[in-house]
Amino acid sequence: MTGSARAHRLANIAPFEVMEVLDAARRLEATGVDVIHLEVGEPDFLTPAPVLRAAQAAIDAHPMFYTSALGMPELREAISSWYASTFAVDIPAERIAVTAGSSAALLLALAAVINPGDAALISDPGYPCNRNFVRLFDAEPILVPSGPEDRYQLTSRLARAAWTPATRVAIAASPSNPTGTTMTQDEWVALADVCRTNGGTLIADEIYQGLVYDHPPQTVLSVIDDVWVVNSFSKYFQMTGWRVGWMVIPDGAAREIEKLAQNIYISPTTPSQYGALAALSPEGIAILEERREELGARRDVLLEALPQIGFAVRARPEGAFYIYCDVSEHTDDSFAFARWLLEETGVAVTPGRDFGVAAPEQHIRIAYTQPIDRLREAVARIGDAVGRARL
Amino acid sequence: MTGSARAHRLANIAPFEVMEVLDAARRLEATGVDVIHLEVGEPDFLTPAPVLRAAQAAIDAHPMFYTSALGMPELREAISSWYASTFAVDIPAERIAVTAGSSAALLLALAAVINPGDAALISDPGYPCNRNFVRLFDAEPILVPSGPEDRYQLTSRLARAAWTPATRVAIAASPSNPTGTTMTQDEWVALADVCRTNGGTLIADEIYQGLVYDHPPQTVLSVIDDVWVVNSFSKYFQMTGWRVGWMVIPDGAAREIEKLAQNIYISPTTPSQYGALAALSPEGIAILEERREELGARRDVLLEALPQIGFAVRARPEGAFYIYCDVSEHTDDSFAFARWLLEETGVAVTPGRDFGVAAPEQHIRIAYTQPIDRLREAVARIGDAVGRARL
Repeated sequence: MTGSARAHRLANIAPFEVMEVLDAARRLEATGVDVIHLEVGEPDFLTPAPVLRAAQAAIDAHPMFYTSALGMPELREAISSWYASTFAVDIPAERIAVTAGSSAALLLALAAVINPGDAALISDPGYPCNRNFVRLFDAEPILVPSGPEDRYQLTSRLARAAWTPATRVAIAASPSNPTGTTMTQDEWVALADVCRTNGGTLIADEIYQGLVYDHPPQTVLSVIDDVWVVNSFSKYFQMTGWRVGWMVIPDGAAREIEKLAQNIYISPTTPSQYGALAALSPEGIAILEERREELGARRDVLLEALPQIGFAVRARPEGAFYIYCDVSEHTDDSFAFARWLLEETGVAVTPGRDFGVAAPEQHIRIAYTQPIDRLREAVARIGDAVGRARL
Repeated sequence: MTGSARAHRLANIAPFEVMEVLDAARRLEATGVDVIHLEVGEPDFLTPAPVLRAAQAAIDAHPMFYTSALGMPELREAISSWYASTFAVDIPAERIAVTAGSSAALLLALAAVINPGDAALISDPGYPCNRNFVRLFDAEPILVPSGPEDRYQLTSRLARAAWTPATRVAIAASPSNPTGTTMTQDEWVALADVCRTNGGTLIADEIYQGLVYDHPPQTVLSVIDDVWVVNSFSKYFQMTGWRVGWMVIPDGAAREIEKLAQNIYISPTTPSQYGALAALSPEGIAILEERREELGARRDVLLEALPQIGFAVRARPEGAFYIYCDVSEHTDDSFAFARWLLEETGVAVTPGRDFGVAAPEQHIRIAYTQPIDRLREAVARIGDAVGRARL
């Protein structure tokens, strides 16, 4: 049969366990059970109204034709101005590529820097797609186990020790999915130094940048210039389904990224770009900042409650909307534990397996994408369950 | 510097010449010249009003969250029904993946079937991105020169002769960009047979499927089942900036495509998917069919007029909105000729160089994405210019 041959890379690309959990949760819901969804990495807030209104108005006012491959000039300018006003860094619009979500940004960055057979350092635990993007290009992800002592980050110490002759790229995320921990500016500088020393390239994932609760948001661009930065309108800006993100391109590489984007994507979605413009407006930001406070309050509730039910939080999650819990007090198989929790309590969480191979069976990820009363209810249900039947 | 290393593949990925032409045309326009744009591969029609209204309504009525990685179930069902009603073929919704434009469909299909070092057969002339997608995966595009005797298509005769031990994939398009020629069903069957015999995979590009003017549209799926089909809401459905397309996945491969799509894209754009649903409605199709008639009339005007100014059309363009002209009567350098035409007449066309290496200097592509009076005006201007100053 033509169509039946398969590329080797498919064997190494795993599905998301969280999707299996989600399916199981929905099946349970369909039987009438009240399920509390703490598994999905998507904010529960609707896209802010100014974004909706701007997209609707643009659909009437402008032809929804292709835009430039790197995005509408006015949106690139708006992102540049946002860097200046939020972080006091000067990122010219020419270095900003608007992309079809941060997924496209990561794909473009890796397409530009990695060759088959190269290796890329990635923290373990870490966002599962990162290693699969590396595999897409027939390069090898090196999962670097990182524990509480490194705040689950790819620190310079760990990167230096894990670097191999084939290593060309290091990818770090701040705040991180699934742990919510951030990189300090000093850690970014030290990690970039390891990359430079070894002739490697640093990719910084700032997808959750705006969602931090202990200090103002920061960007690696304040302290390093020779870095690829991927960012997103999905999380802080709450535009998941719009599929729009961006990348900051190192000096001198914009033309090459433009060629790649022309070929691979043609252009980002036009209505979404008009929406993103409104997300950056003062009106948009005001709504998002209120929601950030709400998310911070949710985190604080869980940080207090989780240890009381034996869900240990080993490194303070300063951002994103995730808490990575050590549940080894209850189980040595977090996958089975997550299934048991769902069936027993109707609370859906993500087992550690999605995020790497370093002790995933001891960990689960909780996403606080539900209101505080639902979070309290989830903790109460779990507390009851683990009180009467520890696995 | 970290960030300064580059992947080898970049050296082989060329920018679109058409973009350079477009830039030059816009610069000329800015000086006050009335430019007739026959260079861009984008319909001049606005997205049909029912699509605009549906997207705007959905933005109010539904959360714009991520959808399933393979698209909203109702859109996959609607595409399945459209195959049944338009072509009387039974394609279950489970085999349909909604994608971020046909670009994403082609990337997913190639990611699923091609390995580094493999080769893929592509017609020359052909759509420039196809070869660059192959290069993205560090595989080798084999450009198969195809002339009027093969109607510029990758026929089974040419594919058989060009097949090498490394060849794993053949990509053919019907109708084709830049030539507008179609594959007959017999040609599809014969090409699939060559692929099967050699253990290869056939990818069918039906992006311009609905835009044919001499016979009803057809799909390769009426005669072959073991084929990857990419399609688009951009061209016939006139939704370019919405970035939504689809793929028909061969039996048994949907789960693997879902894993890839989860990782590479998360999901297609949500507002665009609601728009696409309306494009498939009877109201949407009625508008599109009127526009198809208009495009057919434009083609007929050019088919009569172009030979009179020495622009030879060597194979009848039955579809898309392109005419591939042999301009060797006027030049042996179509790139210089296109520049000269733009400066001398204000008519922008695309030089052959974008479409391959087989005699590009003899050819230009004309896109009839302008109303008939503008097309007549363009031909008149060119006629005057070549009458008084042949290159």
